[in-house]
Amino acid sequence: MRPVALLTDFGLTDHYVGVLHAVLEKHAPGVVRIDIGHLVSPGDIWAASFQLRCAWPSLPAGCVVMAVVDPGVGTGRRALALAIGKRFLLAPDNGLAAAIGPASEAVRLDWRSMGLERPSRTFHGRDLFAPAAGHLARGDGLDALGDEIDAHLLVACPLPDPEPLSHGYDATVLSVDRFGNLVTNVPASSVGAASTVAWSHDGEARLVRAYGEGDEGEVVMLEGSSGLLELAVNGGSAARATGLARGSAVRITNLDGDD
Amino acid sequence: MRPVALLTDFGLTDHYVGVLHAVLEKHAPGVVRIDIGHLVSPGDIWAASFQLRCAWPSLPAGCVVMAVVDPGVGTGRRALALAIGKRFLLAPDNGLAAAIGPASEAVRLDWRSMGLERPSRTFHGRDLFAPAAGHLARGDGLDALGDEIDAHLLVACPLPDPEPLSHGYDATVLSVDRFGNLVTNVPASSVGAASTVAWSHDGEARLVRAYGEGDEGEVVMLEGSSGLLELAVNGGSAARATGLARGSAVRITNLDGDD
Amino acid sequence: MRPVALLTDFGLTDHYVGVLHAVLEKHAPGVVRIDIGHLVSPGDIWAASFQLRCAWPSLPAGCVVMAVVDPGVGTGRRALALAIGKRFLLAPDNGLAAAIGPASEAVRLDWRSMGLERPSRTFHGRDLFAPAAGHLARGDGLDALGDEIDAHLLVACPLPDPEPLSHGYDATVLSVDRFGNLVTNVPASSVGAASTVAWSHDGEARLVRAYGEGDEGEVVMLEGSSGLLELAVNGGSAARATGLARGSAVRITNLDGDD
Repeated sequence: MRPVALLTDFGLTDHYVGVLHAVLEKHAPGVVRIDIGHLVSPGDIWAASFQLRCAWPSLPAGCVVMAVVDPGVGTGRRALALAIGKRFLLAPDNGLAAAIGPASEAVRLDWRSMGLERPSRTFHGRDLFAPAAGHLARGDGLDALGDEIDAHLLVACPLPDPEPLSHGYDATVLSVDRFGNLVTNVPASSVGAASTVAWSHDGEARLVRAYGEGDEGEVVMLEGSSGLLELAVNGGSAARATGLARGSAVRITNLDGDD
Repeated sequence: MRPVALLTDFGLTDHYVGVLHAVLEKHAPGVVRIDIGHLVSPGDIWAASFQLRCAWPSLPAGCVVMAVVDPGVGTGRRALALAIGKRFLLAPDNGLAAAIGPASEAVRLDWRSMGLERPSRTFHGRDLFAPAAGHLARGDGLDALGDEIDAHLLVACPLPDPEPLSHGYDATVLSVDRFGNLVTNVPASSVGAASTVAWSHDGEARLVRAYGEGDEGEVVMLEGSSGLLELAVNGGSAARATGLARGSAVRITNLDGDD
Repeated sequence: MRPVALLTDFGLTDHYVGVLHAVLEKHAPGVVRIDIGHLVSPGDIWAASFQLRCAWPSLPAGCVVMAVVDPGVGTGRRALALAIGKRFLLAPDNGLAAAIGPASEAVRLDWRSMGLERPSRTFHGRDLFAPAAGHLARGDGLDALGDEIDAHLLVACPLPDPEPLSHGYDATVLSVDRFGNLVTNVPASSVGAASTVAWSHDGEARLVRAYGEGDEGEVVMLEGSSGLLELAVNGGSAARATGLARGSAVRITNLDGDD
């Protein structure tokens, strides 16, 4: 049986996530379940897209990923199932379904195709996405879940790409993590062998390789766990130290001039 | 083996929930475990009862539910195991055990019957409820857990019922969820085909079917995922918009007069 | 297959914990996973050591415990695997690896020995500890994970021991839990049959056996779930009532004089 991974904005104070797990167990008894996270802010498609991208390469082959951040539940937005590489993604067509990249196959979820009761208009995680994940977990193909759609016509993912400059990038902070690290959208490979980068008009930072190489209070830049450049403070918070936040613009330039 | 679902007020900052999972795995290796939630406020039997009721219909048949919100642990309050429909409920007799409804069979947990060491006076989740859940998971009957008691003589659940009026209900807000939705105790079926409801002296709301049908900032009413009427604001918080909270009284009346 | 338990400071708002679970499932498909907790404050080795000690006796025999609170990730600090009793502990050598006590065998994790790709410098939880846990889960011995080291030469655990006095202890508050209980480092067995203890110059407390035995607002002392003396307030918070916090010094003396 394929494992199922879950990513939602349902939070952990209500019973909603527990209900998803229960429905998965009902539809696919004994299925392996993996929580990517449930504390995405309500309706925050950007954050969910970022977490989905970062977690994606670590997920097992064949994994079925349910990503449900779905403020449009019960309206006309489409609920989709995609085949991407060797994994499956179930998500609403609100930008989140487009977070990973081109799908080789895509269907619109249809409760009739799956032999389900008519879903509620308020909880498609429980009534549509989790049963669909159960079908995929048990080995069904996408064609059992609904009618095929054009995999290239999805609502675009909100995560911005960096804009290349002559010696750097106009970049964006994609995420501030629990440790106050500011993760940008610039791949670490882009700065080559630089030793120092400027990350705005007034800030510059040594490029280091490990958090612990920073001096006390020093803002450093390094390759984070997803291969993206991030600003960090050893034992502190780069977010507090710089005042930058999710979505902040940063200009990253190679001060060595050898890019 | 039967799956086990867990609901507690133990929080996620300490090791207490992890210990429950460990003990379940010890007593029933390989058992399927489902977390309904652990962020019920300390001692909040109302919230736990509400979450238990909402999650209950989604749980697999045969599921063993451990609901441990237990301020009276180690005192005279009884620790119970109930058979309700095809599921089992383990809970202290403080209102929580009565949250779901009539049990066909009930026993008082007895560590001697289960061959356990004498439990601590401070952590019956670990020492009594989890081992009992392990027994049920492995297929034991209730009679292996302790002596039968009268299933009709339990401490009453604190969740209030709505009071019917000529064209509506004197209702109560049972829960405010992560999205700021105010879930009342009135079944959506009660308002029939109404199009507009008043939810207090000064507020009225359109009845819609999906969160996304509300205009910006508009307080709407709709059938929530458990079949109860709730107040919601599309992309916002009904709790903030109305000032209502858990336990607030609301009078819901059908303004169409066609009840 | 051996079960794996996880304890980190990764938090639940990012995807980091989900990635650990995914990598475990990749390296040991179907492995039983138990979350001890992930809300240890960033870099707080004291708190992680405390939770690890408290959870340890409840973990199944053979359990593989990954404890990753690792501010020195990617620097020279060693990543270790220890055999302690019938369980295994994977942790950085920063005090956390020494939290439980003497190991019968210890190795330094080496990605080459495990046939792994070179780990990142920022996420050894994913790249080193989780794959190592997968190896142990599948039945490998410690010798497959790296070279043996001297199990007695580890960085010391930061948790302080109590200092014995003639009729009591100079103690330390090791933890404040979700319920506001102040857990000290004094084993409950130390105060014998005392009925009243002083817990500072100006405070004294009845020794009770259950939280519910305390009167409203009364600070009581009792044996907590890990066998340590703790201060508690029935239905309230001993932390708020006393002003004590994690790390506070308390002098616990037996006022009966019969110690």
